Amino acid sequence: MGRWQPDARSRLQEAALVLYGERGYDETTVAEIAERAGLTERTFFRHFADKREVLFWGSELLEQQMVAAIEAAPASASALGMIGAALDAAAVRFEEVREFAGPRHRIIASSHELQERELIKSASLGAAMARALRARGVGDTAATLAARTGTTIMGLAFEQWVDDPARRPFRQIARDALAQLREIASAG
Amino acid sequence: MGRWQPDARSRLQEAALVLYGERGYDETTVAEIAERAGLTERTFFRHFADKREVLFWGSELLEQQMVAAIEAAPASASALGMIGAALDAAAVRFEEVREFAGPRHRIIASSHELQERELIKSASLGAAMARALRARGVGDTAATLAARTGTTIMGLAFEQWVDDPARRPFRQIARDALAQLREIASAG
Repeated sequence: MGRWQPDARSRLQEAALVLYGERGYDETTVAEIAERAGLTERTFFRHFADKREVLFWGSELLEQQMVAAIEAAPASASALGMIGAALDAAAVRFEEVREFAGPRHRIIASSHELQERELIKSASLGAAMARALRARGVGDTAATLAARTGTTIMGLAFEQWVDDPARRPFRQIARDALAQLREIASAG
Repeated sequence: MGRWQPDARSRLQEAALVLYGERGYDETTVAEIAERAGLTERTFFRHFADKREVLFWGSELLEQQMVAAIEAAPASASALGMIGAALDAAAVRFEEVREFAGPRHRIIASSHELQERELIKSASLGAAMARALRARGVGDTAATLAARTGTTIMGLAFEQWVDDPARRPFRQIARDALAQLREIASAG
C-alpha cells in the first residue's frame, strides 16, 4: 500500500485495514487505529463517523459517479448500455484503490455485520441507478431490472477482480460479465 | 388472515404480525406475542428462536424447494430456464402464504435490521441456486449470474405481487419479469 498519498484519511484507512486483518475487526478500537497511523482519535473522528465507516468511505461518491455516467450516456443507449457506462465509471474508481480493495474485501467477508452493511450499500446503489434510468425514460420495471443486474455484475466482477492473479482491469472483467449475462439471457 | 389453520405456529405468526404492525417491531416483546396468541412464551420458543425469526421462518424450506426445482429441471433447460423453474416453485409457496406476505413485507420495510436480514437471506438463496446450477453443468460465472438474476427477479416480482390490486399470481408476474429481462439483455 506504499503508493498511497500520506494524507490523514489514507493513513487511517491503511492502519485500520492492517489492524482489522491482524487482530480482527471486532477486536480493533479507534484508539488503536489512530495510534498506528500516528494521529489522534480526534483526527480519526474528523474523517470517519466510526470504525465501520473506514471501510465504506467513498461509497456515496462512487454512487454519484455511476449515476452521473447514466445521466451522461448517449440518447441512443439501451438500459444495459447505460449500466455498462456506470460500470466503466466504477472501474476508474476501483483501479485507483486497488491496493485497498483486496484487504477490505477479506475483512468484510469475515464479518456478518459488515456483509450486511455491504448489501445495504449495494441495494442503495441499485435504487439510485434505477432512478437515474427512469429519468432517462426507461420504464419502471425495466429500470429496476437493469439497475439490479448492474449491481449483480458489479459484485461478481469485483469478486473476480480483487483476487485475479492476472490482474485484469475491472473494466474488462465487468464487460465480460455483462456480455455473458446477455448470452445467458438469449439462451432458450 | 382468517383462512389460516389455527395451529400454534400460525397463531404466533399472526399475533406477531398484528403487533408489529400496530406497535412497531422494536416495541413488541415475545411475551406480548405469546399472550395475544393465547399461548405461553415457552411455546413461542419451541417454534421460533426469537421475535425476528417469526418473520423469516420458512425461508430454508423455500430455498430447498427452489434448489430441488433446479435439480429436477429437464436436461435441455438453459440456466435461466432452470431459474424459471425455481421461481415457479417459489410461486407455489408464496400463494399459500399470500395473506401473511403483505403485512410481513411492510414490517420488514420499516426496519433497517430486518431489511439487512432479508438481504442476507436473499444472498444465501442466490449462492444455493448457483451451486445447484453448477451441479447441473452450468459454468462458474454463468451460474452465479443466472442465480443472482433469479434473486433479482424474485425480489422485484415479490414487491409487485404483494401490492398488486389485480392480485395476479406470483408465477405470472415473475415470468413477465424474466421475459422483460431477456428483452433488456437483447437490446443494444
